[in-house]
Amino acid sequence: MRDEDGAVALEPPPGESPIVVLVRPQLAENIGAAARAMANGGLFHLRLVAPREGWPGPGQTNRAWATASGASRILEAAQVFATLDEAVADCQRVLGTCPRPRHVVIPLHTARDAARELRAAGARGLRHAVLFGPERAGLEAEDLARCDALVRYPLNPGFSSLNLAQAVMVMAYEWWVAADATPPRQLQTHKTRVATRGELEGLMAHLLAELDACGFLRNAAKRPGMVRNLRHCFTRGEITEQEVRTLHGVVAELSLGRMRRGRPEG
Amino acid sequence: MRDEDGAVALEPPPGESPIVVLVRPQLAENIGAAARAMANGGLFHLRLVAPREGWPGPGQTNRAWATASGASRILEAAQVFATLDEAVADCQRVLGTCPRPRHVVIPLHTARDAARELRAAGARGLRHAVLFGPERAGLEAEDLARCDALVRYPLNPGFSSLNLAQAVMVMAYEWWVAADATPPRQLQTHKTRVATRGELEGLMAHLLAELDACGFLRNAAKRPGMVRNLRHCFTRGEITEQEVRTLHGVVAELSLGRMRRGRPEG
Repeated sequence: MRDEDGAVALEPPPGESPIVVLVRPQLAENIGAAARAMANGGLFHLRLVAPREGWPGPGQTNRAWATASGASRILEAAQVFATLDEAVADCQRVLGTCPRPRHVVIPLHTARDAARELRAAGARGLRHAVLFGPERAGLEAEDLARCDALVRYPLNPGFSSLNLAQAVMVMAYEWWVAADATPPRQLQTHKTRVATRGELEGLMAHLLAELDACGFLRNAAKRPGMVRNLRHCFTRGEITEQEVRTLHGVVAELSLGRMRRGRPEG
Repeated sequence: MRDEDGAVALEPPPGESPIVVLVRPQLAENIGAAARAMANGGLFHLRLVAPREGWPGPGQTNRAWATASGASRILEAAQVFATLDEAVADCQRVLGTCPRPRHVVIPLHTARDAARELRAAGARGLRHAVLFGPERAGLEAEDLARCDALVRYPLNPGFSSLNLAQAVMVMAYEWWVAADATPPRQLQTHKTRVATRGELEGLMAHLLAELDACGFLRNAAKRPGMVRNLRHCFTRGEITEQEVRTLHGVVAELSLGRMRRGRPEG
């Protein structure tokens, strides 16, 4: 689903969000897909280092714009550099994503911790960037030597190769979540609210009266247990006030039907 | 990077990991990309409900296998169903991903909390599944009515439309991380270790001796402060034992050079 307004609305002030640096990206469609992932996570600033097919190269443009799926302003504002040194020359904090262990002495962050690190850098007013290597090979040793720290996502070690846009997605997602206040779980109640115990008891009273009338609870010894079990059915989940009213109707209609059936034919 | 071994090695026993159910997926390449994302997160069980292009349809197969990028066993083991009810008939816990608010009364989880929920279901031995809707429209009201709860990723509300494989990636990533024990940050030291304060003092002593010799610290009043600042340079980051030895060499060579230059020419 395109969301041009969203794409237009999402530009954060420079310095407040990390600059995404794609180092020697190979395919235009991956650059576009990365831009879409950036938009999903509220990132905006994109820098390209020596894109293999050039930027925007012949025919490239459309392919990138297509996979960007509405995040076109990120592509339009993207800056292109010949070398990584030029791309990060104005940055004060640089993290590099690196899926595979490399023989370097450098701090290593999980994606989640890196997100906190980036948020902290932004809060300090430091211009900060995250580097993503080429599709196949990833960042080279010379690239890593330009990073303050590396980011390695905890993922299935048996299958750790991420698509470029997927790698950007995970980092953008973690960056967004690092400042998100959504409660982990809530009950979405549309134009209604969770029923009170009083409303629930009203339903139970109605139900029990009808069940007594039809003899379902005739076994006096078993009655208390059966009533408790019925009560548990309604208290296990959070029944809403609207659902209580619906269930009142269900009980009434079922009893009515029973009485109708009870009436002699013709 | 393909990782056939990884793809072969990643099959978890049924019930221990969530079944990914793609409901009415439109494009074969998205099914393949979703399979790759599943492999990244250690998921294996894939079910397809009424894939628009059929499965495997004419020509579809290759496109899906190409984007799966090595996660072919997931595609080979994928099960196809005509309806969602059939696809989840054997499931005991069903979550549905739903980016946009819908007028239903249902528990709502963040992706992170949903991952904990899925891990808990697996630990209880419940067969559990996560539903992903079609690329454009997402899950319909009738699909949501088959879910115990919904999952909504906290993401940029101005641009919340996720590519299908990206949606699977975020959930698979969170599921993996929910059981991951990687320390948030660590220093990757290859064949070396963080230097002791004793080793650091040895370097400082060597450096200060040479700096005194060349007169860099001749200002007695400023000397203590300058020494403290130099010490801070080395203590701010974690210098390794190997780096201490390298820096000893640097100091020695620089002083040697100075003496050489000090020597009269010819």
